[in-house]
Amino acid sequence: MDHELEKLITHLSKLPGLGKRSARRMVLHMLKHRDTLMTPMGEAILATAKAIRTCEACGNLDTISPCYMCNDPKRAEDRLAIVEEVSDLWAMERGQVFRGRYHVLGGVLSAIDGIGPGELNIRSLFARLQPGCSFSEIIIATNATVEGQTTAHYLQDRIHDINPDLSISRLAYGMPMGGELDYLDEGTLQAALDSRKVMT
Amino acid sequence: MDHELEKLITHLSKLPGLGKRSARRMVLHMLKHRDTLMTPMGEAILATAKAIRTCEACGNLDTISPCYMCNDPKRAEDRLAIVEEVSDLWAMERGQVFRGRYHVLGGVLSAIDGIGPGELNIRSLFARLQPGCSFSEIIIATNATVEGQTTAHYLQDRIHDINPDLSISRLAYGMPMGGELDYLDEGTLQAALDSRKVMT
Repeated sequence: MDHELEKLITHLSKLPGLGKRSARRMVLHMLKHRDTLMTPMGEAILATAKAIRTCEACGNLDTISPCYMCNDPKRAEDRLAIVEEVSDLWAMERGQVFRGRYHVLGGVLSAIDGIGPGELNIRSLFARLQPGCSFSEIIIATNATVEGQTTAHYLQDRIHDINPDLSISRLAYGMPMGGELDYLDEGTLQAALDSRKVMT
Repeated sequence: MDHELEKLITHLSKLPGLGKRSARRMVLHMLKHRDTLMTPMGEAILATAKAIRTCEACGNLDTISPCYMCNDPKRAEDRLAIVEEVSDLWAMERGQVFRGRYHVLGGVLSAIDGIGPGELNIRSLFARLQPGCSFSEIIIATNATVEGQTTAHYLQDRIHDINPDLSISRLAYGMPMGGELDYLDEGTLQAALDSRKVMT
């Protein structure tokens, strides 16, 4: 195989979820659609790599910092959702479930991977939550994983120390919509039972 | 989400096997590895789109035409393997199972998709197989699919008409190495039985 092709396949196979075989398929697909897909995509990658920066305020990705989320006057200034990654922020935005502000941690605490508070975007979070800030409620929207929950507990304690006036909440655990009991893991079932709602 | 990001995600989600979700994951991964992965990959895509061409002789992809396969004096000139796609040629080369020449059809005959002989790289194939050519054996290595087999039969008939001196073969059907009978489909089992080899 030609060296150029091999180099491109090696790059592509480093992307999450891709191996050599899928990378090869992609390159052949690209070469069949050079002008409509391959060249525009290469240009888009270079343009994005150059233009996109991390928002100094919240950790989101945008061409400007502070980002469009932080600048948007229509978003509520009193609620802040803390998420692990930009992909989680995007997920909440797709759902249009939240109209407040965000803070992106850029990861989770993990003793195994050597990720402590200093490795995450936490210092700037605490700076945003000082007494006198605009927020009244902090929603910790980390994932329902061990690391996500550990991070949530750590943040809850520290935020309470920093500003006891803030109300701190986390996302509810329970059955996913459309979920069937028979297919739920025991942890979810337990959580759904523990958080049951009285109907009358 | 920023417009640049959205454009890139749309491009990526057009690649085979990728949807919006995996495209989003990829972009975030790229942005975390801008200098080591994202920029080199964008450059590699543009360089490859510009440099790679289809070999006029055999249909392979390379920076030169005729390609390195056609130019390689160490490859046998008497055997030609006909494959559907460049990926099939790469698969045979990875296996190092064949040291002759190749011809890449660029697809298969398909009445449903409106692909006739004129849409494939067949005219140049027949030109290579005229009486007096260097080949003595033609191996039709199309896939074991309905379209692959239809294409094989068509090629077999036409090649025989063009040059009756050529020996025409196809890849054997049978059990894959490491395969278990219980997991084989009936067609494969039937083929393996029909082509059984006497051991003594």
